[in-house]
Amino acid sequence: MRVSPLNSCLILKRWLMINNRPYYFGAGPAAIPTDVLIDIQQELLNWQGTGLSILEWGHRTPEFMDLMMQLESLFRSLLQIPDHYHILFMGDPARSQFGMIPMNLLAEGQQAGYWVTGLWSDLAFQEAVKLKQAYRIETTQPLSEQLSPTLKDHTAYVYCTPNETVNGVRFEPPSIPVPLVADMTSCLLMEPLDIERYGLIFAGVQKNLANAGLTVVILADHLLKSIQQTHLPTMWDYRTWVSSRSLFVTPPTFNCYVMLKMLHWVKAQGGVETLHTQNLKKAKTLYDYLDQSTCFVNEVNREDRSFINVPFRCVDAQKEPDFLAFAQQRGLIGLAGHRTLGGLRASLYNAMPLAGVIALVECMREFEETHGH
Amino acid sequence: MRVSPLNSCLILKRWLMINNRPYYFGAGPAAIPTDVLIDIQQELLNWQGTGLSILEWGHRTPEFMDLMMQLESLFRSLLQIPDHYHILFMGDPARSQFGMIPMNLLAEGQQAGYWVTGLWSDLAFQEAVKLKQAYRIETTQPLSEQLSPTLKDHTAYVYCTPNETVNGVRFEPPSIPVPLVADMTSCLLMEPLDIERYGLIFAGVQKNLANAGLTVVILADHLLKSIQQTHLPTMWDYRTWVSSRSLFVTPPTFNCYVMLKMLHWVKAQGGVETLHTQNLKKAKTLYDYLDQSTCFVNEVNREDRSFINVPFRCVDAQKEPDFLAFAQQRGLIGLAGHRTLGGLRASLYNAMPLAGVIALVECMREFEETHGH
Repeated sequence: MRVSPLNSCLILKRWLMINNRPYYFGAGPAAIPTDVLIDIQQELLNWQGTGLSILEWGHRTPEFMDLMMQLESLFRSLLQIPDHYHILFMGDPARSQFGMIPMNLLAEGQQAGYWVTGLWSDLAFQEAVKLKQAYRIETTQPLSEQLSPTLKDHTAYVYCTPNETVNGVRFEPPSIPVPLVADMTSCLLMEPLDIERYGLIFAGVQKNLANAGLTVVILADHLLKSIQQTHLPTMWDYRTWVSSRSLFVTPPTFNCYVMLKMLHWVKAQGGVETLHTQNLKKAKTLYDYLDQSTCFVNEVNREDRSFINVPFRCVDAQKEPDFLAFAQQRGLIGLAGHRTLGGLRASLYNAMPLAGVIALVECMREFEETHGH
Repeated sequence: MRVSPLNSCLILKRWLMINNRPYYFGAGPAAIPTDVLIDIQQELLNWQGTGLSILEWGHRTPEFMDLMMQLESLFRSLLQIPDHYHILFMGDPARSQFGMIPMNLLAEGQQAGYWVTGLWSDLAFQEAVKLKQAYRIETTQPLSEQLSPTLKDHTAYVYCTPNETVNGVRFEPPSIPVPLVADMTSCLLMEPLDIERYGLIFAGVQKNLANAGLTVVILADHLLKSIQQTHLPTMWDYRTWVSSRSLFVTPPTFNCYVMLKMLHWVKAQGGVETLHTQNLKKAKTLYDYLDQSTCFVNEVNREDRSFINVPFRCVDAQKEPDFLAFAQQRGLIGLAGHRTLGGLRASLYNAMPLAGVIALVECMREFEETHGH
C-alpha cells in the first residue's frame, strides 16, 4: 500500500472508500479486498513507473516475465507447493478442465472414477463420460465418513470437488491408490493443503485468487510424464503449457497482475493458516445463528457443511425477496441463491471479513424480529 | 468521459496524464487510449454507483447482462454485422481457434484449404493438419494479385490471415465458393469490412478491442447450423457459446467491460471509416520515410505491405540496439521486432495517433543524421 506524500488527503480518502463499501457475498466473481482495488487503481496508468498501464504491457517483456516469476514463486510459497509440481496459468475458463483432464490423463483402455457430491462434480462427470470412460463412485452419508472406495480396473485417476458452491457441501476425499484430481475453484487458498495428496488441482481464480478470466492448474510432474496422447489440440495439451511456462500464447496479463496483488494481500494477512482460522470463525458465526433461527434454515448435514458457501432459505420462502431488499438497504449484497436452486446463499471467501458476517447475522436477526412471524 | 465537479484539478491532471504518456508501438498487448484508461481508473472502485468494482460484479446480474447486450449491440453497429451472424465472447486464447475451427467445421471426409501468408496462418495450418484434413493453397506474388484458387474436393472452408503481424504482410483474399474463415486478431475494427464475405471471423482482443484475455468470434448462422460433430468437448463447441449467449461459464468480465469502453472510444473518433482513413495516413507517413531512408529499410513487397504492423531493420543491424535506446529516450517504446525475426517493428493500431507516427519518423530521421553513417 503506497500513499503519495504529495497528497495527505489520500489517507482520509482511502479510509472513506474502505468504510463506504458494501459487504459483497456473491459466489463468484467475488469480493476483492479494498486495499487491493485501491492499489490497482493508483497505478492503473503507470505500472512500476514505466508510463504504461499494466493493461498494455507486453507479455514477453522482462518486466512482465518477472511478474510471472514472482506470481509463481509467491503462490508456491503460500501453499507450500513442492518443486515437482508444475503451476500453469491458463486463460481458458476453469470449466475447460472438465474436458482437458480426461483428454490428457486417460489413455486408451483407461477410465476415471468420479465422486459426485454436488452440481459441479456432476457436470465434470458428465463431460468425462461424453469424451472418455468414467464411472461414479458410490458415496455414503455423511460424506465426511467416506471409506476408501473400491476402484474399477484401469482407473487412471479419481476426481473430486472438495467444496461444492451451489450445494454448500464439503467433501474431504479418503486416501486412494491412484492420482487424485480436485476442482478447488472455490476453496484454494482458504485453508492449508497437503499438496502431495493430489496429482492435479485446478481453480478458476474468480473466488479467492483474482478477477474472472484465469485458471490455475497445479500438476504433479509424474502425472505430466504419464500423458501419452499424440493428437490433442495443442492448446488443450498440458505439455504445451508446461514447456512454455504458460507463455505459449498471450496470457490474460491483467488477471495475473491482480492475482499477484491478491497473493501479497494473503501474505500480509498472515498467510493461509491465519485466514483459515478466520474462515472457520466466520462460518461458525453464521451457522450458530442459523441453527437457532426460526426464520432461516440451512438444510445440509451438519457434518458436511461447507465453511465457504452457506446456502439457506427462509422457512417461509415468500419472505426471501423482502429479505434481499432488507439486506441490501444495510449494504449487504449478493445474497441470492444459485439460479438452479433459488433461496439464499452467503459466500464467505477470504476477502469477506468477520465484521461482514457479524453484520449479516445482525441483519438476519433484525429481519427475523421484524418480519419473521 | 466524466469529470467530477468536486475537483476541477482533474482536468489539469488528465491533461498531464495524456501528455506525459509514451507512444507505445508494441504488437500486442498494445496501447489503449489514455481516455479509456482514465475512465477505467476513475470508476474502478465503484461501477455505475453500485459501490462494487467491475472486477467483483457477478456475470449473471441484470447489470452485467446489460453490459453484455450493449457490447454486442455497439460492436454489431460499428462493424455493420448482420443479424444472421452470431457474436461470441470467449475467455479462451485466440489461438484455441486454430483447433476449434477444424474440429467444429470439418465433418468426416471434409477438408479445408489454407492460405499460408506468414507465421500465424502457417501455425493455424499446422494445427488443422494435426487434428483434421487440410491443404495449402498456392499463392502467387504479389499476394495482392491472387486469383480465385482451385479448391480440392470436399473443401468445407478456406482460411486466411488478412494481416500478418510478424511478417508485416497484408492479404485480401479473392472470392471463393465456400465459407471464408479469417483470423482478424490484428486488423478487426481498423477498416470497414464486408462481413457477408465471411463465414467466420475471429480476433483476440489485445490489439484493438480490449486488454488481453478475450476472443471474439463472428459466426454465420448457416455455418453454425452445418456443424455435425457429436463428441466435441462442450467448451470447444460453438453451439454451446451461441445457445448460452457467451454466458455458459463465467466470462472474463473485466475484458468485456474494457472492450465496451474501447468501442465507445471508436465511436467517439467517428467510427471505423474515420479510423481507417487515419490508419492509412499513419502507414503512409512511416513508409514514405522508410522508402527514402539509407539507414532503415522495410523489405516487404510494396503491394503487400501491412498498414498495421511495419517491420523494418537498420541496414547496419548492429545499430538496432542503439536505435531502440535512442527512441526510448524520446518516449517511443515497444519497437523491437518479433522474437522469431529480430529487427524492429512499429505497430500502428487504432490507439496510436498520427502524432505518434510523426514523432517516430522524426526520431528515426534524427537517428539517421546522427548515427546513420
